[in-house]
Amino acid sequence: MKPIALDAMGGDFAPRETVAGALLAAEAGVPVVLVGDEARLKAELEALGGGLPIVHAPEVVAMDEDATLVRRKKGASINVAVRLVKEGEAAAAVSMGHTGASLAAALFILGREKGIERPALLAELPADTPSGRVHVIDAGANADVRPSHLAGFARLGRRWARHRGVEQPRIGLLSIGEEAKKGNQLIKAAWPLMEKLEGFIGNVEGRDILAGKADVVVTDGFTGNVVLKLVEGEARVLMGWVKAALTSSTRAKVGALLARDALRALARRLDPAEYGAMPLLGLNGPVFVGHGASDRRAVKNALIRARDWARALG
Amino acid sequence: MKPIALDAMGGDFAPRETVAGALLAAEAGVPVVLVGDEARLKAELEALGGGLPIVHAPEVVAMDEDATLVRRKKGASINVAVRLVKEGEAAAAVSMGHTGASLAAALFILGREKGIERPALLAELPADTPSGRVHVIDAGANADVRPSHLAGFARLGRRWARHRGVEQPRIGLLSIGEEAKKGNQLIKAAWPLMEKLEGFIGNVEGRDILAGKADVVVTDGFTGNVVLKLVEGEARVLMGWVKAALTSSTRAKVGALLARDALRALARRLDPAEYGAMPLLGLNGPVFVGHGASDRRAVKNALIRARDWARALG
Repeated sequence: MKPIALDAMGGDFAPRETVAGALLAAEAGVPVVLVGDEARLKAELEALGGGLPIVHAPEVVAMDEDATLVRRKKGASINVAVRLVKEGEAAAAVSMGHTGASLAAALFILGREKGIERPALLAELPADTPSGRVHVIDAGANADVRPSHLAGFARLGRRWARHRGVEQPRIGLLSIGEEAKKGNQLIKAAWPLMEKLEGFIGNVEGRDILAGKADVVVTDGFTGNVVLKLVEGEARVLMGWVKAALTSSTRAKVGALLARDALRALARRLDPAEYGAMPLLGLNGPVFVGHGASDRRAVKNALIRARDWARALG
Repeated sequence: MKPIALDAMGGDFAPRETVAGALLAAEAGVPVVLVGDEARLKAELEALGGGLPIVHAPEVVAMDEDATLVRRKKGASINVAVRLVKEGEAAAAVSMGHTGASLAAALFILGREKGIERPALLAELPADTPSGRVHVIDAGANADVRPSHLAGFARLGRRWARHRGVEQPRIGLLSIGEEAKKGNQLIKAAWPLMEKLEGFIGNVEGRDILAGKADVVVTDGFTGNVVLKLVEGEARVLMGWVKAALTSSTRAKVGALLARDALRALARRLDPAEYGAMPLLGLNGPVFVGHGASDRRAVKNALIRARDWARALG
């Protein structure tokens, strides 16, 4: 299999954690090529006592830079990583950096799939659906959208859910009431387009997302990104409260010790570092975006996921 | 103290649960007047073996009706309840019905406070702030907003947080990145207005809402309503998973029994039926909106909360 190109300069803890994560992934059998400043990456590899192929990229797009800069920085690590996919040298590109920059690079270099108006980011969250997952699209690639974009996200999400084994995905449109007339102007305008889609079950509300009412939840990238980060943040806060509750008395403490393993398994299910990366859908080639705050474990999981998905996508 | 006017016909389980909740609140010392169809309310009171004053209202606004209908249905229970506040007969109006209808009735009958462009719904959620709460505004009254509305919500939220004992509320604008340039068009346009506000700390993200980064989180009513319902839905799903994890093995089961009381206290903190109702801010008079799916306990808590808040507001 062709290697996975990792933008080793992207992410809050790059390049130390990206390189360390790549080494862990390589140990797990994932072919990885590091993309970034060669001298720095060599130094990191040396410090960590490992070896991996490197493709040099002289520039970087920082987290606080404007995504439009990507087109001018041809030598940015994200551009070089995506170009490896375009040129058939890599099976997929993965970045923990700026989502907007990854999208811009992918659009510019790989281009949109035929018939797709806007690529979108898909997040798989744990949920009470038959598959154990809910697919939220767009999770942050397009902050401002038109009604036709939402219908396009629904089609991309449905295809992905099928590809992941959900035979007849139920598609819900995220809104603030179940009835078709409830929502903002965008949602109301999207209804006539959504109604024509196979699998459309109508509006779903915030409370339905994890409860499993739909397999695919369609929303704009602003709301979707808020949802994604809220699900993650609430899980962290609630698990903290559960732990505090279980150590609030001697009696509860004894209970907590006995219940510890069960709770640890649950915490793993809710940890974004476990799922690692999200696909950008609707492009001519596989690109995955991870969490900016990824540590080496998250980077490793992102690379494993990218390898598995790139392989399954053929 | 003047009574609290309860729209006894509003809500998914009205009038049975609204009347039962009003009786529980009355037992707890809250003066309540029921507003709705006199014959039906009398029958409910009789079935439940209690007595409460009734003000007759011949009409109802159903959950699936358009909020604009409210102006034509002068005899709707929500209109009659709000009119009691306007006429000084009630200290506050409370409804578990249609939020849009409650807002329309309040706007039409009580009117906006001077200097307020748009009234908004405020949700208090449990959070890791010093007060133990985060104040989210708008939680669902205005699905489509302009930048100036967001600045107005910030001022209403700040005043409410102060009134609730937070001396110097930190105000965050909900967005999809920390930097000022990250967000949708609405958020970017709101920044110049938000920056001038005392207490503004910049953007907050979904993961920061419950983690306590801000005391007041400002957002449009669409996103705010998704947030409110997602927080509630995720808490329910996660507590289900925690319970399942704690009964997944004999060892964990023993732990769970010992930890039960601690977990019960936590479940209460996360139960929307506990907090019961949310204030509609920016109107000339107190109006509270509860959860459509409120049972009698939620109705009781909504009435207690309305009484306490109406008293504190003077």
